Amino acid sequence: MTVVRNSCHYGIAGYYATMATKAGLIGMTGTNARPSIAPTFGVENMLGTNPLTVGFPTDEEFPFVLDCATSITQRGKIEYYARMGMDTPAGMVVGRDGKAHTDSVAILDELNTAQAALAPLGGIGEDLAGYKGYGYATVVEVLSAALQQGNFLRALSGIGENGEKVPYHLGHWFIAIDPEAFMGLESFKKTCGDILRDLRGSQKAPGCDRIYTAGEKEYLTWCERKVTGVKINPAVQKEMMAVRDELGLTQYKFPFED
Amino acid sequence: MTVVRNSCHYGIAGYYATMATKAGLIGMTGTNARPSIAPTFGVENMLGTNPLTVGFPTDEEFPFVLDCATSITQRGKIEYYARMGMDTPAGMVVGRDGKAHTDSVAILDELNTAQAALAPLGGIGEDLAGYKGYGYATVVEVLSAALQQGNFLRALSGIGENGEKVPYHLGHWFIAIDPEAFMGLESFKKTCGDILRDLRGSQKAPGCDRIYTAGEKEYLTWCERKVTGVKINPAVQKEMMAVRDELGLTQYKFPFED
Repeated sequence: MTVVRNSCHYGIAGYYATMATKAGLIGMTGTNARPSIAPTFGVENMLGTNPLTVGFPTDEEFPFVLDCATSITQRGKIEYYARMGMDTPAGMVVGRDGKAHTDSVAILDELNTAQAALAPLGGIGEDLAGYKGYGYATVVEVLSAALQQGNFLRALSGIGENGEKVPYHLGHWFIAIDPEAFMGLESFKKTCGDILRDLRGSQKAPGCDRIYTAGEKEYLTWCERKVTGVKINPAVQKEMMAVRDELGLTQYKFPFED
Repeated sequence: MTVVRNSCHYGIAGYYATMATKAGLIGMTGTNARPSIAPTFGVENMLGTNPLTVGFPTDEEFPFVLDCATSITQRGKIEYYARMGMDTPAGMVVGRDGKAHTDSVAILDELNTAQAALAPLGGIGEDLAGYKGYGYATVVEVLSAALQQGNFLRALSGIGENGEKVPYHLGHWFIAIDPEAFMGLESFKKTCGDILRDLRGSQKAPGCDRIYTAGEKEYLTWCERKVTGVKINPAVQKEMMAVRDELGLTQYKFPFED
């Protein structure tokens, strides 16, 4: 295990877990982040979206990689809802009034001004076990600060005493576990693969034709995009063209303008 | 880290995490269990309630201990709902029809016959990120079987090929991390305590007078029960008296019969 302090955004958590799986190791990692999750029974943005990320090598073409925030969702998804003109599903965001907010455009502003916060995995309150997501976000916050004596919670807001922007210093942690120290890498990969195959092969819900395991959808997308390239939705296309025009670079055309 | 195979129910996961915190260590542990959680987009009970449990020593009277199933709830809670004549909140249990089941008495039977399964933390489907709870349950299943080459998933059902009861052999894993290998135990405990105090001290939701951190409610209950003893609800009292009467031990009276 190793830990880092005084860092900044470390990018894709799964990247580090995959470094381990490529080396035949189990990888675990997490980071704190600018405060955005409210604790259970709270409404103040206190914890980062704090991913708790785990990767396993398997005997398949791609590793198991669970790379996810300990909130239900993160700001990027709400930006997507706003661009697509969709409401945010109730339960993902809690306002200072303690209620679920759903107006995606308004939420983006409310998150900036701390008038709303993200709900932890499990949702607002205790009804569907939001305290578990809140607990896991706290686990990641502690591992990202206490071993390395780094900053945490409000000190990561990026806003100084007089409202000015200030640097924030994030912490990360990384664990690598060698299956060779137990019963060997090959048997680990086989059993891990067997578990994932059994899960995918189990009884589907009516109307669902497929069960996925963590990292599978991303692997399928990666395979597809190697051939097709990356699709850009119309709202983002419009933004890219607006930036191009603002910069007076109208001699350039994007492929999607054809 | 150490792992176990061919075990049985290991009791309270938090007990092992607390062994670590008492020794000034970070403790992590998990176990697989009889299959009861359905994967996202699935309806078959495949994964155990698979706790992902973490304990931290702090500078307070009690450690941080997050000891929770990676399902929203577990059978015991539904037994409680049934005893109290309450419905199970929608989203905790998925039937073979793919829908949320809420009749607590019926669910207990449906879980026995695999006509219903527990939903992972985050709920049924992907709407509120049920794939995250499903992912964490899978992480615990793999760590409980692949390093030690133990049994997993359906092999833990406790039911043989001809429907007879058979032993099931669970696996567990335990990680202990020594803060002295980083920047020291005392500074770890202080920062961990500071994080927990900041969370508790943050803005409450309207109508909520307190924010808790993991292990705090359990500590408070323990303190109270050292003085008051353990309260037993009327439904359990009735069951205890029925057993006593069945056994013909009517010369004995329970304290709650006064």
